[in-house]
Amino acid sequence: MKEIKVKKKKKLYEGKAKIVYETENEELLIQEFKDDATAFDGKKKGKIKEKGAFNNQISGRLFTFLESYHVPTHFVSQFSANAMVIKRLEMIPVEVVMRNVATGSLVKRYGVKDGTELDHPIIEFYLKDDAKHDPMINEDHVIAFGHADADEIKLIKRYAQKINAVLQSFFFRRDMVLVDFKLEFGRGKSGKIKLGDEISPDTCRLWDVQSGEKLDKDRFRQDLGKVEEAYREVHRRVFS
Amino acid sequence: MKEIKVKKKKKLYEGKAKIVYETENEELLIQEFKDDATAFDGKKKGKIKEKGAFNNQISGRLFTFLESYHVPTHFVSQFSANAMVIKRLEMIPVEVVMRNVATGSLVKRYGVKDGTELDHPIIEFYLKDDAKHDPMINEDHVIAFGHADADEIKLIKRYAQKINAVLQSFFFRRDMVLVDFKLEFGRGKSGKIKLGDEISPDTCRLWDVQSGEKLDKDRFRQDLGKVEEAYREVHRRVFS
Repeated sequence: MKEIKVKKKKKLYEGKAKIVYETENEELLIQEFKDDATAFDGKKKGKIKEKGAFNNQISGRLFTFLESYHVPTHFVSQFSANAMVIKRLEMIPVEVVMRNVATGSLVKRYGVKDGTELDHPIIEFYLKDDAKHDPMINEDHVIAFGHADADEIKLIKRYAQKINAVLQSFFFRRDMVLVDFKLEFGRGKSGKIKLGDEISPDTCRLWDVQSGEKLDKDRFRQDLGKVEEAYREVHRRVFS
Repeated sequence: MKEIKVKKKKKLYEGKAKIVYETENEELLIQEFKDDATAFDGKKKGKIKEKGAFNNQISGRLFTFLESYHVPTHFVSQFSANAMVIKRLEMIPVEVVMRNVATGSLVKRYGVKDGTELDHPIIEFYLKDDAKHDPMINEDHVIAFGHADADEIKLIKRYAQKINAVLQSFFFRRDMVLVDFKLEFGRGKSGKIKLGDEISPDTCRLWDVQSGEKLDKDRFRQDLGKVEEAYREVHRRVFS
């Protein structure tokens, strides 16, 4: 791993699960993962012990793995137990959701049977806008609202599909089904599209292959108990 | 116009604004337009005098016009003042919405400024499902739910774009802005995609070019008065 020494400077942004700091290098930021957990549009709040560290380390491992498949990401190196050095991206305010199995909002919105395996993955776009409750959009909206152009969307979809294929196998080899997950992309210094944000049990649904047990934030959302244990278990398997 | 003589037989389907009857020819149906008007997911109900006849005649004129541009439609011929003979289609339960100017749900959902002209038209898909309140979907959902395959969606999008271009000019020559409209497609006997349903002030937003006055169902939705007059005026201009 590259040794990048930077110092934490001014706080740039604080979200529900992460804080981003500037460094003395204007192209590099520090992304710190919090133990705070929220769900249902922020209406449910809590803390999950060590979540910040687990998510930081899981994300770092997955970003590194994806880079080896030529998916450009913002990850540079680990900074501390619960923080990583990342490249500064101009973030596109769109959440890209990939689904392999129908559950969650897909079931609620369209009445599909929970747990239905999809013949082809579904890609969805959501506008990141808390005040508007992150409404679903499509590619035409992304272009019309000026968030990305047609070529960028094409590339984002291609990356999302590749990430899905790569991570499905990665998790399956570790006895987990990658049910669905959320990605966020941004533009690097030269305008190149890169994967940003995180990939963790906060942003992925992961089910144990044998038992079907949920190993992700749904344990928190649905009060299933053993929340911290699930994050720890995913961390263990990701590093096995 | 072709002279097609058929007799009205058993009622096949009754919706909020139309009734469809079988005829003695199993490939042909009669589509009758009602004066009933509904809005807001059926919560607002009313009647608009002569709407059935206006919508029938406007739709017939527009279908004929689109056929001359090689857009296949279900229209065969007029049957009576408020009914037309149509080809039987296997309908795809998806509403295709084309938008040229931001208004209505686009403004409500995404906070775009009302009346913003869009640089490129936006296409949206909605699942026709009253119980689920016609939720927005995308192309992947249409395929995943088995409503159409990728080639059919490509064709539907191509038709929708062509229809938009043709009708924008048609209405503009008659001093109306085609703000947005809804289309429904189905499969004919040989599986060929054809345009079905209707094209009328019930399914289009039309604004007078000079005054910006609304000449469509928004007059009913928003209690703007002169509802019947708007339908009559669109009818007059469409036949001028």
